[in-house]
Amino acid sequence: MTFDPQTLVYDANGLIPCIAQAEGTGEVLMMAWMNAESVAKTLETRRVTYWSRSRQSFWVKGETSGHTQALVDLRVDCDRDCLLAVVRQEGPACHTNRRSCFYTSVVGEETELMAPMDN
Amino acid sequence: MTFDPQTLVYDANGLIPCIAQAEGTGEVLMMAWMNAESVAKTLETRRVTYWSRSRQSFWVKGETSGHTQALVDLRVDCDRDCLLAVVRQEGPACHTNRRSCFYTSVVGEETELMAPMDN
Repeated sequence: MTFDPQTLVYDANGLIPCIAQAEGTGEVLMMAWMNAESVAKTLETRRVTYWSRSRQSFWVKGETSGHTQALVDLRVDCDRDCLLAVVRQEGPACHTNRRSCFYTSVVGEETELMAPMDN
Repeated sequence: MTFDPQTLVYDANGLIPCIAQAEGTGEVLMMAWMNAESVAKTLETRRVTYWSRSRQSFWVKGETSGHTQALVDLRVDCDRDCLLAVVRQEGPACHTNRRSCFYTSVVGEETELMAPMDN
């Protein structure tokens, strides 16, 4: 039976968190939100499509920047309330031009772990 | 200046999502929630301590099961509203006894990617 996005557990706003992980390296790139329709679009188009909470609209990752995420696999966790997208990331995932959004360690003092990528 | 958990961005319930990733393999193990105090406890004790939304109490991962998460690094994302804990996971991270909670692929039909671990 084909997977039905309606079977996921969404929060009060109809959203589910989605973690993006780079294929191969396993690097965690970012976390953003999806609604049932963006889950369906992601599976249909194989381009990761979030729901932008600030703009209240679909957010096809990289549509403007070119830093797209091609879907390799989409996994759901045991509680069905969190997704993991394994992706082929084009360029940096972060809007700061860093490969990953998780570039700051907070153990002890805050420390930047990576620099912005060259254009 | 030492990192202050109060500088993170919490949701309306005072919570922030925290992704746990295995040191070395990079496997994404689980996602759970923290409040400012559990972030502080995690940093102090170096044992990953979530906030259980169902029990409304601290959840020292593995306290009952023995499947602890020793903190290797804690990172914050560019928006300061999501955490990534790099951990040394003892045994399975998932309550189903699987290494990771993300054991089900939803591309096409739902497919289980890993079996429970031996005890």
